[in-house]
Amino acid sequence: MAGAGGGGFMFPRTATGRSSLVPPPPWHYSGTMLTVEFRTDPAAVAELLPPPLALAEEDPGAVAVIWADWQSCSDDFSELLDPVRAQYLETFVVIRCSYRGETYSRCPYIWVDRDFAMVRGHHQGYPKKLGELFVTRPVNVGLAGPRLQPGGRFGATCSASGRRLIDATFTITGTASTAGFVNGHPMLHHRVFPAIESDGTDSLHELVTMRGYDAEVGPCYAGEATIAFYESPVEELTRLAPQEMIGGYWQEVGTNWRAGTTLER
Amino acid sequence: MAGAGGGGFMFPRTATGRSSLVPPPPWHYSGTMLTVEFRTDPAAVAELLPPPLALAEEDPGAVAVIWADWQSCSDDFSELLDPVRAQYLETFVVIRCSYRGETYSRCPYIWVDRDFAMVRGHHQGYPKKLGELFVTRPVNVGLAGPRLQPGGRFGATCSASGRRLIDATFTITGTASTAGFVNGHPMLHHRVFPAIESDGTDSLHELVTMRGYDAEVGPCYAGEATIAFYESPVEELTRLAPQEMIGGYWQEVGTNWRAGTTLER
Amino acid sequence: MAGAGGGGFMFPRTATGRSSLVPPPPWHYSGTMLTVEFRTDPAAVAELLPPPLALAEEDPGAVAVIWADWQSCSDDFSELLDPVRAQYLETFVVIRCSYRGETYSRCPYIWVDRDFAMVRGHHQGYPKKLGELFVTRPVNVGLAGPRLQPGGRFGATCSASGRRLIDATFTITGTASTAGFVNGHPMLHHRVFPAIESDGTDSLHELVTMRGYDAEVGPCYAGEATIAFYESPVEELTRLAPQEMIGGYWQEVGTNWRAGTTLER
Amino acid sequence: MAGAGGGGFMFPRTATGRSSLVPPPPWHYSGTMLTVEFRTDPAAVAELLPPPLALAEEDPGAVAVIWADWQSCSDDFSELLDPVRAQYLETFVVIRCSYRGETYSRCPYIWVDRDFAMVRGHHQGYPKKLGELFVTRPVNVGLAGPRLQPGGRFGATCSASGRRLIDATFTITGTASTAGFVNGHPMLHHRVFPAIESDGTDSLHELVTMRGYDAEVGPCYAGEATIAFYESPVEELTRLAPQEMIGGYWQEVGTNWRAGTTLER
Repeated sequence: MAGAGGGGFMFPRTATGRSSLVPPPPWHYSGTMLTVEFRTDPAAVAELLPPPLALAEEDPGAVAVIWADWQSCSDDFSELLDPVRAQYLETFVVIRCSYRGETYSRCPYIWVDRDFAMVRGHHQGYPKKLGELFVTRPVNVGLAGPRLQPGGRFGATCSASGRRLIDATFTITGTASTAGFVNGHPMLHHRVFPAIESDGTDSLHELVTMRGYDAEVGPCYAGEATIAFYESPVEELTRLAPQEMIGGYWQEVGTNWRAGTTLER
Repeated sequence: MAGAGGGGFMFPRTATGRSSLVPPPPWHYSGTMLTVEFRTDPAAVAELLPPPLALAEEDPGAVAVIWADWQSCSDDFSELLDPVRAQYLETFVVIRCSYRGETYSRCPYIWVDRDFAMVRGHHQGYPKKLGELFVTRPVNVGLAGPRLQPGGRFGATCSASGRRLIDATFTITGTASTAGFVNGHPMLHHRVFPAIESDGTDSLHELVTMRGYDAEVGPCYAGEATIAFYESPVEELTRLAPQEMIGGYWQEVGTNWRAGTTLER
Repeated sequence: MAGAGGGGFMFPRTATGRSSLVPPPPWHYSGTMLTVEFRTDPAAVAELLPPPLALAEEDPGAVAVIWADWQSCSDDFSELLDPVRAQYLETFVVIRCSYRGETYSRCPYIWVDRDFAMVRGHHQGYPKKLGELFVTRPVNVGLAGPRLQPGGRFGATCSASGRRLIDATFTITGTASTAGFVNGHPMLHHRVFPAIESDGTDSLHELVTMRGYDAEVGPCYAGEATIAFYESPVEELTRLAPQEMIGGYWQEVGTNWRAGTTLER
Repeated sequence: MAGAGGGGFMFPRTATGRSSLVPPPPWHYSGTMLTVEFRTDPAAVAELLPPPLALAEEDPGAVAVIWADWQSCSDDFSELLDPVRAQYLETFVVIRCSYRGETYSRCPYIWVDRDFAMVRGHHQGYPKKLGELFVTRPVNVGLAGPRLQPGGRFGATCSASGRRLIDATFTITGTASTAGFVNGHPMLHHRVFPAIESDGTDSLHELVTMRGYDAEVGPCYAGEATIAFYESPVEELTRLAPQEMIGGYWQEVGTNWRAGTTLER
């Protein structure tokens, strides 16, 4: 990519490529995911699906909100010894949609707490903002945390610009084979960037799909969940108000990412 | 931009556009700029200029490092009453280059401390990362700050990922007609975004130029400056090591931005 | 203080004293203060006045909430060249009380955004917590900020633990001789620290008074203000709900602090 | 403690006690500890031991630096469902000393990343400052983290005021019965607070000892460690430069704290 302002995967591009905000793929991820699933008014999901995307045929109002507590690294694994460059939390909303007869997962809203993860997500079509994210961790000793067994209780919160946006709780009642169904399909994202001319057009406007490879999961714990959305002048989460809770899940997850596929431009 | 995943200027795109991480232009800016200018080895500047960009003919090794302490807002000015959405600091490096016979300013490195400013900068071709940025403010009363008069001393620092990257000082000796010359031309930036296929190509690869409009400035204070760059495994500032100091400047600045122009794709 | 674990003013105490979280007094302060005054139910103020403190005789329900945007430094002024150690914001609530026939100001709640300012405040009896604090700055050029003249509008916010606690606005209508009356008396604070035995007693339990010296102020702008308090599981601001607004003030302030006086132990 | 400005354990003291920055003990802790032990010049340890404290008789130059990644809560466990009030990281230096013929552990330097943990530590005599702290977490799935088995590698860093202060690495080689010996004794701390009169005396000046109760630990992993200290104008860690590495340890830990004992005033 020497013509793109120098070498390196992401900006800043330089002669050495060392300054790139995001190292080149593949990227490796290990972490935990707390998933809360519920049903909202399908019209609120439809609002987030520009044509030709359409509501999923089955359970079209299903929504997942996920707190993922990650370590990630590039293929040289150097970030794992300087963990400020490896660790981040993200809270994201997942809906489903139908496109060319297939069902996809899609992330309309997401907050993250580190810059490299934010821009890496932009590359993948995740509309990441910065937030302050917290999720209870399970423990094996002491009184200050849930055990991974029935009765274990977790809290999870998402704030941005000093405003609490989401609170959730999860209580383990047993195990499950999979951590819900909303986030279980390939992702279908728009990658957009407005034209510098500010003329209402986009310079980058792609519909892409992707999924990880060599995923590895630990035991999946399932249970009861609650969730609440709060108002902000620059957010719209309350439009996705829960009408019926589905449940919650907690699972260790490892995955890897190398590339996606452009479907439309 | 209804086809781009919904309405709104920047992602996330929604039915209402309210969630957009960046409000639609025009954007208005008022703030202060502390500028430190020096000369480095021109070869270090040339490294940051992919063809057909070339070194500026006059003073090709000149570099400016600028701390800008901004308030910015959209055309409805609502951010000014919720200043978490208006205020940010940025530290940026400026070099010059020659393109089609004209001299341009160009920003190869920049750190900022809020997400909306980060992504708004990406839109304009600034390769923004997050940092922790500080610059002394002048005061009119009390002992804890410099006065805008000869002898007034300022400090400025830039850190990222918990590492100090830049320290600078500035001491006013008098006034000047302009705040240096390195940042005085239209900006020439690459806007780049790698293809989702991770095949070494870019989906967005534009050479753009832009400048603000209706700029307004206060008195320009000039003086002596020092600067030091420190090592980081993910930065290259030390390649721009100063060989000769030019000077420093402090000035209040107001500007506005609506659009730029694409020069090449 | 060699016997206190080494030398230096505040902990950590070491042989050189260099590590002290707070440098030794005197401390110098320059900054801006945005003050919002209103009246609440005097019973809500009385709750915050342990005997022998009593309600002020005149206007006992008056409350001020102040956003102070400071630079501060020790007597060698070194912090002003490393401004991460000089700059901080604080938002504090001030009430008045009567003690031995005199009227005092008293700070029951306060948030600050840097550790040195937090512990320096603890030394003075301010019950400082960490918060995310923002206040609009006036500008002299450009569109992104109020001018210091009638019609100038400011916003101010206080958040902690990712929850918005206070929003306020201020609009200049003219000038005034002083920035309100609630914060105009010597401070009367308790300095408390529980015994390590956790037996319900305090190891440090002092009633102290203090005020700055060589204060210097700029012009005082006055006007109309609004304020709103929000709920938190660990705050009680809503108990001070406004019943009647008094007004708002903005002023540059310089002050210095060397010592206070212990009134009771 | 009604006379101390109202009710509640720590300031702010109010009628309800709800605002207290620290909830009343007991406090429960669950987390992980990464310990790096080495030997420095015993004279550097002696500097941090005011009389009558003296160097430990055996291995007087031994030092531990520990990254503890905690969840903590009060006796009603409410913090575990609002984890912004439960989770924090701390990096602390531990030395040993001799007092009245007994050997104690002592913490001369410590950084933490949340206010409640900072002031709770001050109560216990820990000289806590704020820092940005990171430590690699072990994982069970995926490539982005070490396994708790030989070959597992961890990184740990401590920064404050935008300056990197400490880097460390740890590689598991096997297991051990205990996580080192430096942090294994009851703690011996000074609790100090200068007089408000700024006359060189302390209002609070206590020598205290304490230890947790009902400690519970997981398997202890041991191995090789490296550590480096960096300069800062307000730190003195480089005085404790390692002369010989002892080793590293990683262990899950649960503990509880109710009270300590005052030894001297």
